[in-house]
Amino acid sequence: MPFSLEDVAVHNNRDSCWVIINQQVYDVTEFLPEHPGGFSIILKYAGRDATRAYVPIHPKDALEKHLPKSKHLGPIADAAAQKLEEAEVKREKSQDELRVEKSRRERPLLSRILNLYDMDEVAKKVLPFKVYSFYSCGADDGITLEQNTRAFSRFFFNPRVMRPVSKCDPSTKILGFNSSLPIFVSGAAQAKLGHPLGELNITRACGKAKLAQMISTHSSCSYSEIANAALPGQPLFFQLYKSSIDEKAASLVKEVESLGYKSIWLTVDVATLGNREKDVKSGWVLEDQEKGVPSYYIEEAEKGGEESVNFFGTSSPRVALDDHDMTWQKTVPWLRSVTKLPIALKGIQCVEDAVLAAEAGVDGILLSNHGGRQLEYSLPPLEVLYRIRKQRPDVFDKTEVYIDGGVHRGTDVLKAVCLGAKAVGFGRAFLFAQSAYGEAGCDKIIQILRREIVTGMRLLGASSIKELRPEMVERVDWEPIIRSRL
Amino acid sequence: MPFSLEDVAVHNNRDSCWVIINQQVYDVTEFLPEHPGGFSIILKYAGRDATRAYVPIHPKDALEKHLPKSKHLGPIADAAAQKLEEAEVKREKSQDELRVEKSRRERPLLSRILNLYDMDEVAKKVLPFKVYSFYSCGADDGITLEQNTRAFSRFFFNPRVMRPVSKCDPSTKILGFNSSLPIFVSGAAQAKLGHPLGELNITRACGKAKLAQMISTHSSCSYSEIANAALPGQPLFFQLYKSSIDEKAASLVKEVESLGYKSIWLTVDVATLGNREKDVKSGWVLEDQEKGVPSYYIEEAEKGGEESVNFFGTSSPRVALDDHDMTWQKTVPWLRSVTKLPIALKGIQCVEDAVLAAEAGVDGILLSNHGGRQLEYSLPPLEVLYRIRKQRPDVFDKTEVYIDGGVHRGTDVLKAVCLGAKAVGFGRAFLFAQSAYGEAGCDKIIQILRREIVTGMRLLGASSIKELRPEMVERVDWEPIIRSRL
Amino acid sequence: MPFSLEDVAVHNNRDSCWVIINQQVYDVTEFLPEHPGGFSIILKYAGRDATRAYVPIHPKDALEKHLPKSKHLGPIADAAAQKLEEAEVKREKSQDELRVEKSRRERPLLSRILNLYDMDEVAKKVLPFKVYSFYSCGADDGITLEQNTRAFSRFFFNPRVMRPVSKCDPSTKILGFNSSLPIFVSGAAQAKLGHPLGELNITRACGKAKLAQMISTHSSCSYSEIANAALPGQPLFFQLYKSSIDEKAASLVKEVESLGYKSIWLTVDVATLGNREKDVKSGWVLEDQEKGVPSYYIEEAEKGGEESVNFFGTSSPRVALDDHDMTWQKTVPWLRSVTKLPIALKGIQCVEDAVLAAEAGVDGILLSNHGGRQLEYSLPPLEVLYRIRKQRPDVFDKTEVYIDGGVHRGTDVLKAVCLGAKAVGFGRAFLFAQSAYGEAGCDKIIQILRREIVTGMRLLGASSIKELRPEMVERVDWEPIIRSRL
Amino acid sequence: MPFSLEDVAVHNNRDSCWVIINQQVYDVTEFLPEHPGGFSIILKYAGRDATRAYVPIHPKDALEKHLPKSKHLGPIADAAAQKLEEAEVKREKSQDELRVEKSRRERPLLSRILNLYDMDEVAKKVLPFKVYSFYSCGADDGITLEQNTRAFSRFFFNPRVMRPVSKCDPSTKILGFNSSLPIFVSGAAQAKLGHPLGELNITRACGKAKLAQMISTHSSCSYSEIANAALPGQPLFFQLYKSSIDEKAASLVKEVESLGYKSIWLTVDVATLGNREKDVKSGWVLEDQEKGVPSYYIEEAEKGGEESVNFFGTSSPRVALDDHDMTWQKTVPWLRSVTKLPIALKGIQCVEDAVLAAEAGVDGILLSNHGGRQLEYSLPPLEVLYRIRKQRPDVFDKTEVYIDGGVHRGTDVLKAVCLGAKAVGFGRAFLFAQSAYGEAGCDKIIQILRREIVTGMRLLGASSIKELRPEMVERVDWEPIIRSRL
Repeated sequence: MPFSLEDVAVHNNRDSCWVIINQQVYDVTEFLPEHPGGFSIILKYAGRDATRAYVPIHPKDALEKHLPKSKHLGPIADAAAQKLEEAEVKREKSQDELRVEKSRRERPLLSRILNLYDMDEVAKKVLPFKVYSFYSCGADDGITLEQNTRAFSRFFFNPRVMRPVSKCDPSTKILGFNSSLPIFVSGAAQAKLGHPLGELNITRACGKAKLAQMISTHSSCSYSEIANAALPGQPLFFQLYKSSIDEKAASLVKEVESLGYKSIWLTVDVATLGNREKDVKSGWVLEDQEKGVPSYYIEEAEKGGEESVNFFGTSSPRVALDDHDMTWQKTVPWLRSVTKLPIALKGIQCVEDAVLAAEAGVDGILLSNHGGRQLEYSLPPLEVLYRIRKQRPDVFDKTEVYIDGGVHRGTDVLKAVCLGAKAVGFGRAFLFAQSAYGEAGCDKIIQILRREIVTGMRLLGASSIKELRPEMVERVDWEPIIRSRL
Repeated sequence: MPFSLEDVAVHNNRDSCWVIINQQVYDVTEFLPEHPGGFSIILKYAGRDATRAYVPIHPKDALEKHLPKSKHLGPIADAAAQKLEEAEVKREKSQDELRVEKSRRERPLLSRILNLYDMDEVAKKVLPFKVYSFYSCGADDGITLEQNTRAFSRFFFNPRVMRPVSKCDPSTKILGFNSSLPIFVSGAAQAKLGHPLGELNITRACGKAKLAQMISTHSSCSYSEIANAALPGQPLFFQLYKSSIDEKAASLVKEVESLGYKSIWLTVDVATLGNREKDVKSGWVLEDQEKGVPSYYIEEAEKGGEESVNFFGTSSPRVALDDHDMTWQKTVPWLRSVTKLPIALKGIQCVEDAVLAAEAGVDGILLSNHGGRQLEYSLPPLEVLYRIRKQRPDVFDKTEVYIDGGVHRGTDVLKAVCLGAKAVGFGRAFLFAQSAYGEAGCDKIIQILRREIVTGMRLLGASSIKELRPEMVERVDWEPIIRSRL
Repeated sequence: MPFSLEDVAVHNNRDSCWVIINQQVYDVTEFLPEHPGGFSIILKYAGRDATRAYVPIHPKDALEKHLPKSKHLGPIADAAAQKLEEAEVKREKSQDELRVEKSRRERPLLSRILNLYDMDEVAKKVLPFKVYSFYSCGADDGITLEQNTRAFSRFFFNPRVMRPVSKCDPSTKILGFNSSLPIFVSGAAQAKLGHPLGELNITRACGKAKLAQMISTHSSCSYSEIANAALPGQPLFFQLYKSSIDEKAASLVKEVESLGYKSIWLTVDVATLGNREKDVKSGWVLEDQEKGVPSYYIEEAEKGGEESVNFFGTSSPRVALDDHDMTWQKTVPWLRSVTKLPIALKGIQCVEDAVLAAEAGVDGILLSNHGGRQLEYSLPPLEVLYRIRKQRPDVFDKTEVYIDGGVHRGTDVLKAVCLGAKAVGFGRAFLFAQSAYGEAGCDKIIQILRREIVTGMRLLGASSIKELRPEMVERVDWEPIIRSRL
Repeated sequence: MPFSLEDVAVHNNRDSCWVIINQQVYDVTEFLPEHPGGFSIILKYAGRDATRAYVPIHPKDALEKHLPKSKHLGPIADAAAQKLEEAEVKREKSQDELRVEKSRRERPLLSRILNLYDMDEVAKKVLPFKVYSFYSCGADDGITLEQNTRAFSRFFFNPRVMRPVSKCDPSTKILGFNSSLPIFVSGAAQAKLGHPLGELNITRACGKAKLAQMISTHSSCSYSEIANAALPGQPLFFQLYKSSIDEKAASLVKEVESLGYKSIWLTVDVATLGNREKDVKSGWVLEDQEKGVPSYYIEEAEKGGEESVNFFGTSSPRVALDDHDMTWQKTVPWLRSVTKLPIALKGIQCVEDAVLAAEAGVDGILLSNHGGRQLEYSLPPLEVLYRIRKQRPDVFDKTEVYIDGGVHRGTDVLKAVCLGAKAVGFGRAFLFAQSAYGEAGCDKIIQILRREIVTGMRLLGASSIKELRPEMVERVDWEPIIRSRL
């Protein structure tokens, strides 16, 4: 028999904890200690409707996967559903929600989005404060985040003239798979925080545009939903956060392999989570904004401990159980042993490790500092790429090299490709685009990048990717002009 | 019989399209598909008076050249002319037009214009928003545009003392033609957008001052008007945008040769048009300003396509049919075969191409990145010049080297000349000067430059151009001070 | 018999000077010429209560130590005490005092202090203007002060991946004493200006956290108070300002040795006091603020002499009698002769002196420019450390190397340790933390630093201090991004 | 018989031009064509009282020297003098004059001037707009002016410790003459524009402080007035602007030699006057400020000529007749032949000329770009000094090297001295100091510099000038922090 709200309400504690999600009642009492996000966040909703908090951060199949059938207790009654709906209607919206709604109504015409910066600006306006803080934040003071971008401004072109370019082909291959442009979508999870369709927006746009997309272990859409949304032959890559339990990791790899994912990108730059202060404090910054006055310190009432703060922010739950003792000797061979898919390492940050990776025989490496979210003062990926080109160009013969982080313009892509990158990853750009305009936003930034890349190739005197050469870029010794300073 | 407005008004569509220009009626129906600017811009004025839109961007002989006699249908009736005039008088002026009119009334005294920056400031004030956007914009984020200027700030002087300089002669030769100063007017088209007399203002000022002027294929005054305005012996140069149809290009070269033009400067840096966002969006920025509120995006109502936007901006029509498959092997010999005039290449952007050009036997090269309007992150011309001086000084013996882009001061000119440039081109400076004060503005900036160049030569210890030596300039390793930061 | 206020009031001049401190009457007439701070500051309070001025800058035992028993005349009468108290209650508070009181009430929750910058900001708000000026000021224009910090921004990491770091131990040894982190509290005196418990706040926090603390000769708590507050085994270091009278210095060393202090850090960078203008002028800046209008210059009324200004500011009294003729030949052997404790030199500022110190056989050197308070344009300590690493790495084998100055982040600490520093000193950070929240503030910044250091080590691929290697940091050639510019 | 105002008033034209100066009437008709400042400025006062315009820019003996006795027609009548006085009293003061008067009343206490920047600020406030514009302006955009200062910020110290410095002697010799500090007053003319006593303020302060002062050919006090104000033995140097007529120059040298001047500093960096726009336009900027609205351009009413503007500004008259054809071969030997005084060249701006000067056997050279007032982008003197040290240290053995330009701090002086300068010149600093507080201002900045120099020497570990060594300074590769950015 369907449950009334009162039926559920009594199970509001650690000993018996029920929650309502999408009008279904679940008994999560035994699951509490296993929840990767910690049990306290669940207890906050014990005996109550948790739909609004649950949906944007969990794939649709999460309950099936993690909860035994028997714990799915059944639907709530129609009267209960109606009450929840009425409550939702009556709920007073926060200032932030009202701001978001207004901004969404007043989004600029899509035809007026001329470049990725324009798109980022719209996203900043239409995203809830906490989501934007999570998406946009870097480690510590955001210096590596910013340097990732500035790095591109230190490389200038030696454009060539008098070369036939009326025909110009920007297509290439990534780990053997065709790509219409030398770009791909780098692992950027939790897209549903920005748009209800989440990662699917990106999948559909990539399908039409013939681009590869990397799906994170922590994707907010389920791996199968995404696989189903892909066109035949459309390459999906899997970004693996390896569990410390090998078997669990192996079964995850086999799962995505069976769903048709085409390669495994092992995350190697998350030995622990970076110090993402902007994300960590977004909760109380917002709270203070809403109530207009902050809470003050009262001697003795607050102990100086750090226990009360979640220093890992939005991403915290997901990393605690990962493997933080991977080694070259152990981990790469293990991964080879569980899959025949091409393997790449995501998060190589220096020349020495690029060399070790090439020697370990992986199919590709992604030079990345996790978009500036992990170690503050990690060198910008473009600078690492440049050092490999200067110091160890043999790496390019032994493995495919990719980069991501701080890329905003077609010319940025071309600089990296000239220096030896097979392709360049975009993460936040797609999160922002789908947050702003859903699938149409993703279509748009791909169109922009295609136009910028082809224009750039022509003006460089290159009619194909292989004509983009290291000699065409030069690192200058002067300080970059920053967009905001113009 | 003269036409009434009603006679014309019915021919307002693609099947029969008449327009009125300067009180004459033209049938442009068959011309629609050939219009380099696309047919939609014409259809906007189908059946109506198009004078205000047409005049500032077309040379006087454009209709003769491109429309058969038979399509010139004859004048409108006096009554019709009067109605048009009345309509013009009654027309409510836009805020931008009113701003321009006020600014023109309040231009500073010409004697208070002390340098080229002062002149640029006046131009910015008195130009319509869209014209200023078109004149001033660079590619992408304007970084190369800005770096062109900053480059000069990284070169300092080693001035010499105890040298006789009471007599000081700044004259030189450009492709064999006398020039009273080591400067020339670089190809800057569409001057009529800024002043009704357009390029003629510049021609007259150059005549008096004994300076050479380069006339663009896309000049808004006709080649013959300009030739007629020149003094005997005054050197006019022709900037050729080569058509993809060799015969068309050859006949253009022969036309200007017969008009007395003295050399051909082949544009080599426009394999496609640069991404000039400021220009592209100036239309809707202005529109939003005028009506006070922008248009908002409505899901589904707007498709994410890029078709609706003219990404080539103001210059778009002119480039589509040009030759984008020029080569060293084919194009230079072809040009030699159609003219005996000296040949220079405009738009060389790296040392390697300077060497190839010298080897191809052209008479001169113009180091230029098109005023920062083509490939963003193309090296500043002064930096390319410096690299030629350091790496391949033999180039200076084989061909004459010129530069343009970012030049504002006499000392800028002297730095380039010290490093090996025969002369330095000014483009926007003359567009701005003639926009602000017509011919008198052009006179003024020539006077300023002469004073600054002679003062600089004396203080450097040089009494003639040949005494300006590479040792007199030194590239410093510190960041330039930018005028706006002072 | 207890004194009345009138009894004391008559002793208000140089010939007979009594003062009341903590309700006790002292005859300081004979002490006047010996007062390190000069006699005029005492005369200001002659015949009056001096408690408020005296307490925050003198250790509790100062009177015992410097005044013979006989000069302690006894307590004031109860009625007198009551009058003083009433006067204090009625005293009109200055705007600055009111501002401080409000700011203290409104301190943010301690849990919201995420990093050392957050803590500095609170301190800036809750400190009296003059105290903050004294704590925060550098020499001259504060350029070295600022460069100390910026130096860290020029060093980037080459993080290593695929290394086991789930276990991570940040402990090390400092001059042989255990330290739970590679940091220590560098000599920062006069803590009672910021908080009534002064240096004791720091001592207690260090005890719990197992960190070493350096106590200045000019500590505002007495050496024994601090020794008493320390836990068993907790390492206290002594920062020696050497008197020009060797015997006096020797007896001081013996005193702290007998109190259990574990090492002597000889200050070598104070041959005279630096030019601390912000501190010097804070008095009159505040005065002008309070009365709203500054005093104007009147010709002849003011002589241009410098006599009327105390150019040594808050620290002035303490340095005049120090030894300004120390030498390598004389001073180090002398110090060895008076103590068996480990000896370090605080204030080494160039490679050459680091080499000389190593050759002189000291146990450690502290690369420091006194937090930018001594010679303006002294190189930042991190840059000196880098030069030692490049030019004379043998120094690291001969003596232990420490640095302080400009450190704000765990990554800053790690950069220094990678380059060869055994540990990194924090001075102002602890002054600010204890000013803001007392002992809890000190606890807090230690927790922050521990978290940042361990996170950084893991992300660098280091599970112990010895795995932090010079190759892991790289000095970049681009300009640092400054926090305030983000 | 004394003249009435009416007597004078009729002589108001080029054919008969009388002026009143200090109540005396002069017939300057025949002098008009000879006036170095041009005749039009005199005609402005023809038939009228010219005292206010004349006095601040002419030495007292100018009339005697340049006008025959017979042209001195005698005094005006008492009634006339009274009328002039009344007119002066009734004269409505300009806004600028009122601002100056208020600022002078509100000058800060001299004891609160802590450094030279503080003094410059006062001067900026109390000087008439035009005078401040003249004193402070540089060439073109003021970039060299600013770089002169910034150059010092690129040099850091390697301070030495453990050296005896309780005794510290900053005295040195300049061209053989004793100087209590390694500084001198560099040629800065027209001091009376800032203070009625003009250069005498500086002379008196230098006498007391035992410093050398360079007196310009264009001094606004007469050479003999200054000689009379000097103490016995006080070294006065003469800055020679050499006339193109050798005899005239020789007689000037003999004149000052006979007055007791001790050396001749030949100006070599004024082959023509620099482009000082701030000075040139200060007249009309002020005019616009006073009347509130600028004059507008009217087509045809104003010709674009440059004739109407005085491009040489305040200094213009003085340079036109100078020798602009000096050579190493001719001019140095000529100067040796007319005087036995030590000879130095003021205005050497590159290594090559320093070498030539040393080879020409002059006693000293002053590395100077005329305070940034001559050639924009001339290298900062400190950078030239550094290049001599690196490339041609033998120059220091062959001639004495001095620098001026951009010096503000004791540490600036010490950097130059470490690199090899015998002493460092201050120009504007003394103009500003005497403008702000007269002689007391000059005393003050000398006290400040003495304190800063001695403090700096002690903290560097140097007890005498000869202990300041090149190894103590290091040119860094990072961008300087600018005071205004702190």
